[in-house]
Amino acid sequence: MSFHEDLSLRVEKVNKLLESVMKVDTGLSEYLMEAMRYSVYGTGKRLRPILMEASAELFRGDAPELPYFMAAIELIHSYSLVHDDMPCIDNDEYRRGRKTTHAVYGETTALLAGDGLLNFAYETAAAAFNDTKDPVKTANALKILARKAGIFGMVGGQAVDVHCEKNNDPLTQEKLLYIHENKTAALIEAAMMIGAVLGGASQTDVKKMEEAASAIGIAFQIRDDILDVVGTFEELGKPIGSDADNDKDTYVTLFGFDKAKEDVQMYSDKALSIIESFGGDKEFLLKLVESLISRNK
Amino acid sequence: MSFHEDLSLRVEKVNKLLESVMKVDTGLSEYLMEAMRYSVYGTGKRLRPILMEASAELFRGDAPELPYFMAAIELIHSYSLVHDDMPCIDNDEYRRGRKTTHAVYGETTALLAGDGLLNFAYETAAAAFNDTKDPVKTANALKILARKAGIFGMVGGQAVDVHCEKNNDPLTQEKLLYIHENKTAALIEAAMMIGAVLGGASQTDVKKMEEAASAIGIAFQIRDDILDVVGTFEELGKPIGSDADNDKDTYVTLFGFDKAKEDVQMYSDKALSIIESFGGDKEFLLKLVESLISRNK
Repeated sequence: MSFHEDLSLRVEKVNKLLESVMKVDTGLSEYLMEAMRYSVYGTGKRLRPILMEASAELFRGDAPELPYFMAAIELIHSYSLVHDDMPCIDNDEYRRGRKTTHAVYGETTALLAGDGLLNFAYETAAAAFNDTKDPVKTANALKILARKAGIFGMVGGQAVDVHCEKNNDPLTQEKLLYIHENKTAALIEAAMMIGAVLGGASQTDVKKMEEAASAIGIAFQIRDDILDVVGTFEELGKPIGSDADNDKDTYVTLFGFDKAKEDVQMYSDKALSIIESFGGDKEFLLKLVESLISRNK
Repeated sequence: MSFHEDLSLRVEKVNKLLESVMKVDTGLSEYLMEAMRYSVYGTGKRLRPILMEASAELFRGDAPELPYFMAAIELIHSYSLVHDDMPCIDNDEYRRGRKTTHAVYGETTALLAGDGLLNFAYETAAAAFNDTKDPVKTANALKILARKAGIFGMVGGQAVDVHCEKNNDPLTQEKLLYIHENKTAALIEAAMMIGAVLGGASQTDVKKMEEAASAIGIAFQIRDDILDVVGTFEELGKPIGSDADNDKDTYVTLFGFDKAKEDVQMYSDKALSIIESFGGDKEFLLKLVESLISRNK
């Protein structure tokens, strides 16, 4: 089976999992559950649950708690998109060609749908205790999820990003790294660390997975910043960086194009060499990470 | 010690607990943590954590996991107020004479502060696993918290309430009971059930606590609806219910004043007789419940 066939099957599997988790009878609040489903279904790449499962495969692989946490992390990712898209943050009407939740259901419902999804994520993760033989391991996975999703992770990164933008506060290298590390990398760290924990990894190996995931998240985000510049150049025919002063600062404007390209390579090499150092079934994860970092869009 | 002295000491204890839980170094996202602290400190009655602890006292009492869950449930209550007050829901500038979070920090920060608080609640609850000797019991408490806070509880009730209001959808008796049961009672159920679970109650007793808490929540809310009418009568000098058609429907407009008063009594009696049926130290809880239902504002 080729990598792309494998990836498609995994995306399909996660979509089915999400559908089954969200097939619940919510009675009179069904309209909100409908908005929650709309927010989760659609065109997501399901990167975080797929990274989680592939990380578990480096260790003992299949664990009964995995589906609960795979669904939970995607629900958290979904809630963050719903709230980010709202008028008071990014005010986006479309995401990947599909109307955003507030554009379809209104701002009030989007706010509550995001809250509902975040709660439902923890409810889903907590249901893993029904299927576990090792509640301490499951508790460790839950602690990682909450830590990396919140003020010390994704919410913290989002807060600094939004705060700089709303206040025209210039980004510094320190702030940009904080944003990339927290807004993007933290949930990737959660995915891979939880995969490792549930797969039965040692504490040392979970720590190594955190480092690999952090490097992947940062490389992914710098690559994104590079693609923005290349995109601008191709679309506008202007020299790269010429209108940097008018734009939001990025890794490229703060560190320069050459340093950005070097750092993608450096972080990628770091992540790949950590993954290489593990036993287990690592072929898919290596290819996934390579595809993330060399992606064209 | 009088009931009111006891209550004041308990409020003070919860305030200290919340301060210590929120005394964390969040680095660059400190401004958001500041908005989160603002949302939690202030003039809260701390009803839910106090009910939780008092419920534990009906059983084995002091449990090492209690402070984590007491803080967590108050953080969840706080997040729900922050989001409820936002312009797209109730658009309230003041709550009990104090500026609301969005009025002080802006809408964007209020949205993220609510998200941060909800996540932090689960992070705080999950930290109970560090101090527990019984991870299965702790997991049961966590499952109750997530269930009662989310789409099958508080968020669900809030959704139906907001949906009816925004769409000028008339309230029916069924919808109003759903709203009172979920928006108000669900988190009180969580508080008392978690207290019972952590105190070592049997499943049967946890179920009885759920029934008592549900009755308390509904009685509390009907009493609120009655006070609204009495307030209107005293302020405006109009006959009770005369302007009901211009107002939002309440328990009083839908069921009538006499039935509302009877039902407060019926739910209260039910709650008190369940609590009476337990052993343990129940004096404070009985007085607290009585004070909730006979309160004047």
